[in-house]
Amino acid sequence: MADMQRVIYFIQRPHGMVTPDAFEIREERVPRLTGDKDVLVETVYASVDPYMRGRLSAGKSYTAPFAVGQPMAGAMVGRVADGGRSSLTAGEWVFGSWPWAEYAVLPETSLRRLDPSLPPTTALHVLGLTGLTAYVGLTKFGRPQAGERLVVSGSAGSVGSLTVQIGRLLGLAVYGIAGSDDKCQWLEQQMGVHKAFNYRAADFADALAAGLQEGVDIYFDNVGGAVTDEVLRHLNPHARIVICGQIALYNQDKPAQHRPLFSDLLISRAQATGFIVGEHQEEFPKALKRLQSWYRLGQLHAEESIAVGFDQWINAFLGLFAGANRGKAIVQIKDA
Amino acid sequence: MADMQRVIYFIQRPHGMVTPDAFEIREERVPRLTGDKDVLVETVYASVDPYMRGRLSAGKSYTAPFAVGQPMAGAMVGRVADGGRSSLTAGEWVFGSWPWAEYAVLPETSLRRLDPSLPPTTALHVLGLTGLTAYVGLTKFGRPQAGERLVVSGSAGSVGSLTVQIGRLLGLAVYGIAGSDDKCQWLEQQMGVHKAFNYRAADFADALAAGLQEGVDIYFDNVGGAVTDEVLRHLNPHARIVICGQIALYNQDKPAQHRPLFSDLLISRAQATGFIVGEHQEEFPKALKRLQSWYRLGQLHAEESIAVGFDQWINAFLGLFAGANRGKAIVQIKDA
Repeated sequence: MADMQRVIYFIQRPHGMVTPDAFEIREERVPRLTGDKDVLVETVYASVDPYMRGRLSAGKSYTAPFAVGQPMAGAMVGRVADGGRSSLTAGEWVFGSWPWAEYAVLPETSLRRLDPSLPPTTALHVLGLTGLTAYVGLTKFGRPQAGERLVVSGSAGSVGSLTVQIGRLLGLAVYGIAGSDDKCQWLEQQMGVHKAFNYRAADFADALAAGLQEGVDIYFDNVGGAVTDEVLRHLNPHARIVICGQIALYNQDKPAQHRPLFSDLLISRAQATGFIVGEHQEEFPKALKRLQSWYRLGQLHAEESIAVGFDQWINAFLGLFAGANRGKAIVQIKDA
Repeated sequence: MADMQRVIYFIQRPHGMVTPDAFEIREERVPRLTGDKDVLVETVYASVDPYMRGRLSAGKSYTAPFAVGQPMAGAMVGRVADGGRSSLTAGEWVFGSWPWAEYAVLPETSLRRLDPSLPPTTALHVLGLTGLTAYVGLTKFGRPQAGERLVVSGSAGSVGSLTVQIGRLLGLAVYGIAGSDDKCQWLEQQMGVHKAFNYRAADFADALAAGLQEGVDIYFDNVGGAVTDEVLRHLNPHARIVICGQIALYNQDKPAQHRPLFSDLLISRAQATGFIVGEHQEEFPKALKRLQSWYRLGQLHAEESIAVGFDQWINAFLGLFAGANRGKAIVQIKDA
């Protein structure tokens, strides 16, 4: 094991589109075990997520901003390098949250041992917070009834690609919105989406209107912005809107202007709910059981876009805002 | 009783601000009793309501559009002129919905006999759909907890002036928004509003920010538009927004643009629900009991702006969109 490691620091708040100069890679000593139950973990897979963009800004958000001058941090899957006096032993796979670094020392209580019968990366998406976000958001706030029409924006993304599949498994007619014809084709051919719309196409608004003639009962929104403006024209009475993300807005320095969405809500007597999954932990055991069951039966496909190498970490994060990923964006730091 | 009467017809759909030329007053014969249980009613008090503006347009709305070439229609309180073979007798006060006319013939089943111990106009507001809208909207979708902060837009209007009072009676700290300093003063001095803000004041946004430093737990929105854009900057976590009306938008031919309100909902994990009271009739008995109790005890003040005379009918309706009314706007057609 090396003495030195690389760590990604957050060095300045971006204005508008986040760029590489918000970050700096530094070399520093690998930390040592100190506490009684501390564990040294080697980072193997790192999650990069759109919500992290919110933490780069100092404004009001649902998570605390990252401090400038501190390392970035997020969800990780790693291997125990040194279990110390904990109950973990070297080589075991663990899930946790730690800095964007090759190694981290963490209290044993902050780590979860992974089920060796499942691929380790699934803890970062289908069987982790991504899957829980899709399942809890759709079921708790979407309140789906079989036969209803579900529209998912950002449907080729991490949460979106699971939401469309869960919608299909719950008996919904599922419509997807994504940013390329390739993604739309993949959604229709592989993800069970009835019809997918490319929001970058010149005729997007017309295609959506033509495709959604029977209206929208549930809109699971990962995107916001102009896409949401169009979808809200097609709400059915008593539609439910699950506001999960607004990635279209995260890099706007000055927010764009929008149609009067509350008027749409009133006309359709619709309900829009913003949620973050961490506030609904009481739902997790049941949701995870269901997700695992679907996954093991092969009914839920866990799409991954894996970027390989520490030096791809920042690019993989920035790529989220250019639509580079299909499914869950993961960075592989070490050989598995 | 006269042979001839005046009737207000809707003759052309307005674009943008509604003006008198959307209507025409015609003289025609007073209708005759025909059916077995028909009743001839003399219109005494007519309700004019913002939602009627929506019915003048042909676009998607929660109520069917008025047909061009037909009489206007709405909620009324009148006296039975001829009870025919029904159980109603001449002189009894009744509530119902009929054309904007001096007289109407209606089936007995469409009329409700008024409680003679209550002022007849209360059926048009505090003890009618207006009061029910305020109560059901605030309690069912606002889910108030004593001590929370309630903001009401359009708070000097019919629904608004009841909502602020009901909020106070439920133990909320109530903040109002209205369109003049006079209305704000009245809200603070007479309606129990903790602090009222004049949205026409040049410093409205700053005054709101200063006054709402502890945030908004419930926003009861009668107005929409720029007022709502400002209020949504101040949501507390898990705030509830009750979308009852969007009067600021009703006369816009081309909708104005807005801040990204879904981003506010996500950041605060807030919920916004559009509702119309007619879809919640299961709540009416309990709500009416509560409203009557408060009203009889003098705890709920029923503010009225009464315009007198048939020839004031159209003006009273148009005045709604200029903020002419304080409390419920009513037209008195005949001497009571």
